Amino acid sequence: MNQDEKKYQEWATRRKEHLDGLNAEILFSKIVQKDRGALAAAITLIESAKAKHRQEANALISKCLPHSGKAWRIGITGVPGVGKSTFIEAIGETLVQRGHSLAIMAIDPSSNVSGGSILGDKTRMEKLAAMDKVFIRPTAAGNTLGGVAQHTRETVILCEAAGYDIIFIETVGVGQSETVVHSMVDFFLLLMLSGAGDELQGIKRGIMEMADGILITKADFGNEASANQAKKIYENALHLLQAKESGWLPKVAPISSITRKDLHHPLQWWDSYFKMVRETGYLEVKRKLQDLRFFEESFQYRMANFIAQDHNIRKKYEELQLKITEGTTSPYEAADALLKTIVHHGIL
Amino acid sequence: MNQDEKKYQEWATRRKEHLDGLNAEILFSKIVQKDRGALAAAITLIESAKAKHRQEANALISKCLPHSGKAWRIGITGVPGVGKSTFIEAIGETLVQRGHSLAIMAIDPSSNVSGGSILGDKTRMEKLAAMDKVFIRPTAAGNTLGGVAQHTRETVILCEAAGYDIIFIETVGVGQSETVVHSMVDFFLLLMLSGAGDELQGIKRGIMEMADGILITKADFGNEASANQAKKIYENALHLLQAKESGWLPKVAPISSITRKDLHHPLQWWDSYFKMVRETGYLEVKRKLQDLRFFEESFQYRMANFIAQDHNIRKKYEELQLKITEGTTSPYEAADALLKTIVHHGIL
Repeated sequence: MNQDEKKYQEWATRRKEHLDGLNAEILFSKIVQKDRGALAAAITLIESAKAKHRQEANALISKCLPHSGKAWRIGITGVPGVGKSTFIEAIGETLVQRGHSLAIMAIDPSSNVSGGSILGDKTRMEKLAAMDKVFIRPTAAGNTLGGVAQHTRETVILCEAAGYDIIFIETVGVGQSETVVHSMVDFFLLLMLSGAGDELQGIKRGIMEMADGILITKADFGNEASANQAKKIYENALHLLQAKESGWLPKVAPISSITRKDLHHPLQWWDSYFKMVRETGYLEVKRKLQDLRFFEESFQYRMANFIAQDHNIRKKYEELQLKITEGTTSPYEAADALLKTIVHHGIL
Repeated sequence: MNQDEKKYQEWATRRKEHLDGLNAEILFSKIVQKDRGALAAAITLIESAKAKHRQEANALISKCLPHSGKAWRIGITGVPGVGKSTFIEAIGETLVQRGHSLAIMAIDPSSNVSGGSILGDKTRMEKLAAMDKVFIRPTAAGNTLGGVAQHTRETVILCEAAGYDIIFIETVGVGQSETVVHSMVDFFLLLMLSGAGDELQGIKRGIMEMADGILITKADFGNEASANQAKKIYENALHLLQAKESGWLPKVAPISSITRKDLHHPLQWWDSYFKMVRETGYLEVKRKLQDLRFFEESFQYRMANFIAQDHNIRKKYEELQLKITEGTTSPYEAADALLKTIVHHGIL
């Protein structure tokens, strides 16, 4: 983590009241000037649940929107241990050498079953974290998947407005978070291990169907043959799936993030994928459909915040919860009662 | 499918207007008398989106609730081809012989990626379908997962009020529907194949964590050794997972639905599981927590229906969708605007 980011993180966690001084106008002017500190502060503002902060955050996003949309948005998933951060470190350096600037964020499932910390370990991606053209943002802890998703989508817009032309969104491939990441990226990359224990890799069929590219990691130090065999298996599996709406044929390649052998594969995939979807207009269509879905999800998220923050509605909500646990009302009746309270709120 | 169910299905699809004549009072009195036709009609009423039908359906569920909750609610999942319906047919006959009555329903993911028809094939489960003590209800087509989940939970209540003491909820283990099924059952059973192609079974790790029992299917005709090997692998995998809140240790057994060998395993599991969770009080706690979650989900579902059915709000919603695709508003601003329209609805 860079000094300025660290500073803003500390500032944000220890002195949250200072967020009140943040203003959409000022933050916007600093963000388009690529001020990393302002970007980090703006993300903290977005993550705040306070109504006042939300208002400034909305104003800021409206300002940033016309300056967004130019980056490659790339989702990266794979089970813990597959080598996601080593891969991101290797490919990230290559991308920066090619002149790109890179923003990396994560959707942390915060699973109540198994948990899992993404980008949480500050010693990971050391080299990247020290680079000026790389911005790394860990997931804010203690949020629901819906909340994290909302913040991440908004963070993508801020990072694009700040000029980052490649966005990585990382997730652990064990839950529903891959679907969420898939819904906000242009290209979905799946990392898989070759060799034994495939049944425990726990990658669900749905994820393979989402993949635009599969990398077989750790194809080094004697694993090359088994990686090549895995390549064939996954290629066969992909052939059995339906063709993609984009017209893109999903690719498979073995890769070593240590020897950096075959690292050109994903680079070539991205070059040709983005060339193709820009020419066909598919990229624009895909993003518009994603926006319509974000609309639905944002609405649910805002509604939940509204219920939590309006004193009378919150009281009603908590009363209904109590009645459900007492068995004096059904979840279905309670849902109706809550809806009626909200709809008639204006005339209460 | 039995004659009476068939009759009501035809009646429901071809003459939907006749639902208007259904009355919660009459349906309730027939359901508690175990009238299968009334049960089938009531489920069709629940699946209707009309406000008038919804009102009767709510009244019906309120009446049925005090008569519900006594059944074993069992979720069954596994990839297509694992042998779910053969297993359900075999175990279903055994359960009926033991004096149980069985209601079988499905959560169909209706995936827009790969689709999949559960209980759709009327030639499946022929023997069970002909039994008086078995009620089979296919998923209504063309619904979202949220809608199907809502209807299924309500159907469980109706079936319990009608005296069915075992409820099977089946799902295809390829998407998010397992999580939905897991959220509405007491015991979650996972069916797995042994042998080759494990990496393509596509069972995600999250599903194994949900399982209270795993059956290795098709342990017959020479597959016994590989099924026993798979048993050991899954037992080892389960030992690596966190202990269950229920205190239950997940079980694994090979099974043949053809030779009906080892069919006593799941029966013994259920007997001891339900004895244990009733004694410890965990069953009650689990169902109360599920109810609180149903409250949230029902609210979202009712809110979506409200938006679709209120003329002014629907118009606003469609205007906002148009603006998003035109790029003149952001999904985030649109969500705020929709929330404001709903909250101020009463005074418009």
